[in-house]
Amino acid sequence: MSHPAAEPLFATSVDAARLKPYEISSALLEDIQNALEAGDSDTVNNLLIGVHSADKAELLNLLSEDDRVELAAMLADGFDATILPELSPDAAEDVIEGLGVDRSVEVLQQLETDDAVHIIDELSDDSREDIMQAIPAALRGELEEGLAYPEKSAGRMMTKKLVCVPEFWTVGDTIDYLRAHTDLPENFYVVYVVDARFHPIGRITLGSVLQHQRSVKINQISNTETYRVLTDTDQEEVAYLFTKYGLVEAPVTNASGRLVGTITVDDVVHVIHEEEGEDYLRAGGVSEQDLQASLIETIRLRFPWLFINLLTAVLASVVIGMYSETIEKLVALAVLMPIVASMGGNAGIQSVTVAVRALATKQLKDANAMAVIRKELLIGFFNGLLLATVMAVGAWAWYHDAQLALIFGAATIIALTMAGISGAVIPIVLSKLKIDPAVSSGIFLTTITDVVGFLSFLGLAAWWLG
Amino acid sequence: MSHPAAEPLFATSVDAARLKPYEISSALLEDIQNALEAGDSDTVNNLLIGVHSADKAELLNLLSEDDRVELAAMLADGFDATILPELSPDAAEDVIEGLGVDRSVEVLQQLETDDAVHIIDELSDDSREDIMQAIPAALRGELEEGLAYPEKSAGRMMTKKLVCVPEFWTVGDTIDYLRAHTDLPENFYVVYVVDARFHPIGRITLGSVLQHQRSVKINQISNTETYRVLTDTDQEEVAYLFTKYGLVEAPVTNASGRLVGTITVDDVVHVIHEEEGEDYLRAGGVSEQDLQASLIETIRLRFPWLFINLLTAVLASVVIGMYSETIEKLVALAVLMPIVASMGGNAGIQSVTVAVRALATKQLKDANAMAVIRKELLIGFFNGLLLATVMAVGAWAWYHDAQLALIFGAATIIALTMAGISGAVIPIVLSKLKIDPAVSSGIFLTTITDVVGFLSFLGLAAWWLG
Repeated sequence: MSHPAAEPLFATSVDAARLKPYEISSALLEDIQNALEAGDSDTVNNLLIGVHSADKAELLNLLSEDDRVELAAMLADGFDATILPELSPDAAEDVIEGLGVDRSVEVLQQLETDDAVHIIDELSDDSREDIMQAIPAALRGELEEGLAYPEKSAGRMMTKKLVCVPEFWTVGDTIDYLRAHTDLPENFYVVYVVDARFHPIGRITLGSVLQHQRSVKINQISNTETYRVLTDTDQEEVAYLFTKYGLVEAPVTNASGRLVGTITVDDVVHVIHEEEGEDYLRAGGVSEQDLQASLIETIRLRFPWLFINLLTAVLASVVIGMYSETIEKLVALAVLMPIVASMGGNAGIQSVTVAVRALATKQLKDANAMAVIRKELLIGFFNGLLLATVMAVGAWAWYHDAQLALIFGAATIIALTMAGISGAVIPIVLSKLKIDPAVSSGIFLTTITDVVGFLSFLGLAAWWLG
Repeated sequence: MSHPAAEPLFATSVDAARLKPYEISSALLEDIQNALEAGDSDTVNNLLIGVHSADKAELLNLLSEDDRVELAAMLADGFDATILPELSPDAAEDVIEGLGVDRSVEVLQQLETDDAVHIIDELSDDSREDIMQAIPAALRGELEEGLAYPEKSAGRMMTKKLVCVPEFWTVGDTIDYLRAHTDLPENFYVVYVVDARFHPIGRITLGSVLQHQRSVKINQISNTETYRVLTDTDQEEVAYLFTKYGLVEAPVTNASGRLVGTITVDDVVHVIHEEEGEDYLRAGGVSEQDLQASLIETIRLRFPWLFINLLTAVLASVVIGMYSETIEKLVALAVLMPIVASMGGNAGIQSVTVAVRALATKQLKDANAMAVIRKELLIGFFNGLLLATVMAVGAWAWYHDAQLALIFGAATIIALTMAGISGAVIPIVLSKLKIDPAVSSGIFLTTITDVVGFLSFLGLAAWWLG
């Protein structure tokens, strides 16, 4: 049985299929699982020859807890440190168990501080304590410093490895300095210029260093236009800054203005991915831990959301209960009423989705909030009018009751108009109240559209049936 | 009235507020609108002193069509080309109208080809034709070449400006070459190494060029491990590659393997942002044009989704209609039935959300599909059991009818179990059928949860009432 090796390096022959990212196939997964069961570490090692560390991490994420521990133990000797940052928190826990404390500490020391901090932060309390105690004091101090920054802050994202030079240097000094230091970060794009207090006062791209003569003064070619980030700036804010202003890197300073790290655009890619994923999951009523959680844990994580939804469903059914007598007189109302509520809900979700996205991308702000609400109201009204026409004709064809059809149509117009207004107003108000509109808008919206849908239809019917 | 200038460059005094991205405030927007109405171009220009081009673009996006045309005309003389790529398609159209064809062509020539292609591609047919005819023949050829790549492909994302050297050069040759060419791209991170056929065979970071002695051969220090992208690779695939393997740049080759461009991670940031935003919007039943479309256009864009939803709502109500007689006997059924359907829908949305996200991030694949489906089934069943208990007790307390309460609970368990299975199966099947699960899963799911919810509850009730 053969498996494709990881991506070809620079292929000289052109083969489109080989340009596709390597995938952990079902066949490979099964072979690994069988070899693990048989305790056959030679086969495991052979199967993983040439597999990229990101793909090994993917494989570990797919395995069961026991298999992860065993695989990590088998790979322990030559364990590639760059696998660790790609693991889910649960998988990292298992892998560290498989590697053992001593080997884990060795592997963690090979990582950049920010990656090591991220991994250690997500471990269980017991594992974290074990690891921290086994780590050499100097590195422990650095990690503790990293852990002291707020979660999801620039301090956590930044790397402390950066290149900076004093303003009075020349291009030649800078090049000599770079040549003399072999432990520079692998990927760095800019050299920061700092003053005597270590405050960043400019930056020069490496391209620009290369393009100028040795005698040129650094402060003549340094670019002083950039955005600076504080260690406790939220990662979402950092991502927004990079995206909006097309930044490639930004210096990070502490509260007193001292340069303490740098964030590069490749760190931001992960943050955007994570933040947008979280918004998506939360809008669907699940937490970001859901994908990796165990069965029992997932049930526990999802239940509260369902329970809140139950309360709003009960509220809607109380509204229906108020009109029990009306429904008894005309059972067609029970048949048609979910349509009104459902159409209101769907139209409202459209409005909410647009408003939440526009808030997240800062396209919706105080300056145009009223215009957006008015637009959503009109969209709700006109789409309500269109749908009401179709629906009234349908209801008339079904029940041959012109008045029922009219009430059905009128309720639809009311429901969709209210859905449009609510769909815009709810996220705006939540965001003013500093409540994440991506999480909570849907539940408020559905409550309103259900109540309005049932109330308008059944209320009009009750008034008409007298 | 004073407005903050755009971000301070390198601030030497620390001021947390100034580190926040600049926002176009309601006050500034209003002042600009008033000045535009008065035709007062001096005030407009004063208000915009020091404002970053990305913020000017944001301002233009917020303005009405007429205001955009007028503002662009006022700014035409010193118009900053980098505003254009940040504009919404509609705003770009208006700005180009305001600048006039000749000035627009001058501005477009200042942009990188990929940015110019992107803008021209989104113009209306008339404007595009006008612009293309006025563009000098050489650039027109380049733009047409760019437009020939499929939309959202690597060919559209890449920049053709790159630095490459033959494999037999030394570090010294490379540095001399870089010094001699002043028109190099502003941000470049790597030098590609090409063979005689212009195929990429390696790359060197600028840091590495700087760190080696002039006499070192390029092919001794070049890194041959990289991923290559074809011009017609989809941008989503490119983003996945960059994110998974932590790439900073990738060479782009045509079908015959020739190096034609390069993609850097900052291009990928925009793609991730765009793609994730689109998924989010589509899941909510709106298209990515929705945010920028006019009222009439938005009504037209949203109606089809509502109409499809109407059909599924009608299907659910047909199920209810089948049990009209049962409801007539016991109107409590009409009161309680929306709760069962709604709880099934909410639980199903949780499952769908997780499955769609896991598919998008390739955490859900053939290798673990069955495990995911089984997990969702069990989550549905157990959360169904928990909720059913609460709900049955509630129904009993409300109606004092033990059998009704039992049926209500049993239907809830059926509805949530089916919701769990469907929530996992629907996205998996859709993705096998190459239908975007982010768009269509919700509608299939709601159809199933509504029908199953009403059918299980009313069906059990009909059987019991006999």
